[in-house]
Amino acid sequence: MPPAAPAYRRLSVEERRSQLLDAALELFAHRTPEDVSLDDVAEAAGVSRPLVYRYFPGGKQQLYEAALRSAAEELQHCFDEPRDGPLLPRLSRALDRYLTFVDEHDTGFSALLQGGSVVETSRTTAIVDGVRRAAAEHILSHLEVTDPGLHLRMTVRMWITAVEAASLIWLDEGKQPPVEELRDWLVDQFAAVLSVTANRDPQTAALAEKLAADG
Amino acid sequence: MPPAAPAYRRLSVEERRSQLLDAALELFAHRTPEDVSLDDVAEAAGVSRPLVYRYFPGGKQQLYEAALRSAAEELQHCFDEPRDGPLLPRLSRALDRYLTFVDEHDTGFSALLQGGSVVETSRTTAIVDGVRRAAAEHILSHLEVTDPGLHLRMTVRMWITAVEAASLIWLDEGKQPPVEELRDWLVDQFAAVLSVTANRDPQTAALAEKLAADG
Repeated sequence: MPPAAPAYRRLSVEERRSQLLDAALELFAHRTPEDVSLDDVAEAAGVSRPLVYRYFPGGKQQLYEAALRSAAEELQHCFDEPRDGPLLPRLSRALDRYLTFVDEHDTGFSALLQGGSVVETSRTTAIVDGVRRAAAEHILSHLEVTDPGLHLRMTVRMWITAVEAASLIWLDEGKQPPVEELRDWLVDQFAAVLSVTANRDPQTAALAEKLAADG
Repeated sequence: MPPAAPAYRRLSVEERRSQLLDAALELFAHRTPEDVSLDDVAEAAGVSRPLVYRYFPGGKQQLYEAALRSAAEELQHCFDEPRDGPLLPRLSRALDRYLTFVDEHDTGFSALLQGGSVVETSRTTAIVDGVRRAAAEHILSHLEVTDPGLHLRMTVRMWITAVEAASLIWLDEGKQPPVEELRDWLVDQFAAVLSVTANRDPQTAALAEKLAADG
């Protein structure tokens, strides 16, 4: 009999890197960064610790940041939504995907946004801020606003922050209320805060009218 | 002529400690933590660098955390408000004090809440979370709720987060809009998000009615 094939086939550099990243992301999604070791990543990927170091010489910190970058990209895809049909249902569908992402990365999401983690640096903060900025830009572009004034920008950013806060509490509370209810509640809040701002700002008032008309 | 008196009088240990803390807090309020050195603190307090180290052997990190603890205490006093009269004006007065605090600690407030700073640790995060928790408790106690349900807790925490986001943007935008307008806008938002939650939760619905009746 010929000898058994090696336990893993030879992967290309890119394949190997992406396999390690996937393993890391899976671990960082469901544990705090403190609870993930390089040995865990090596074991999950079925490779040796030195191999992980060959691809990520910066060790856990570098792996964490690479995994975070990859998660941030995935999260930004949640915001992709065709520009057709009424506006609030579009927001609702994007929120649905966002909350599914939160659900699937629960512990990692909490650890990251609660702050104070050893892996937090100005780079990880910049990645998170990039996602927030992308979310705001998506919303404003669906609203077809190219030159948002201060009131509108503040309203959108405040709502995005409130969504983050809601996600963290939702995770804290054992994912209650049910995700569909949370989603609808957050969409209603969006409409409500936009109405409040409309009382102080003509640009927002025009949008609030549009929103009321297109439902 | 007798020789000139020494440039500084002998302070007690407590007085000296508090003088150093005051100097540190003043510096950390208007610069990022990265831009404050122990030499700056020594100079501002008119003492030598070794003396600062004698009181704060942990150096800048320890001074930062002590200053943060003292700022957090000051901030919590902003929430003190007599339990008389209509509810929204009480919230408005507390917000006024909060925004004055933000104004007077601008750079330090931004650096702290934006995250990613070298001085950020799980301890500094815990201090900030303590302030948030205190804010939520004050609001619920003014609303005379002793056993807040999930919806109400989430609504209050989301609004508090939105206030923080608004404060950061306000600082970013050169303290625009004027603070009185920002304050009134945030109070209006509180009433609006409470109304939205009232549609889904009887406990909040009772409060929203009370709020509408007491204006």
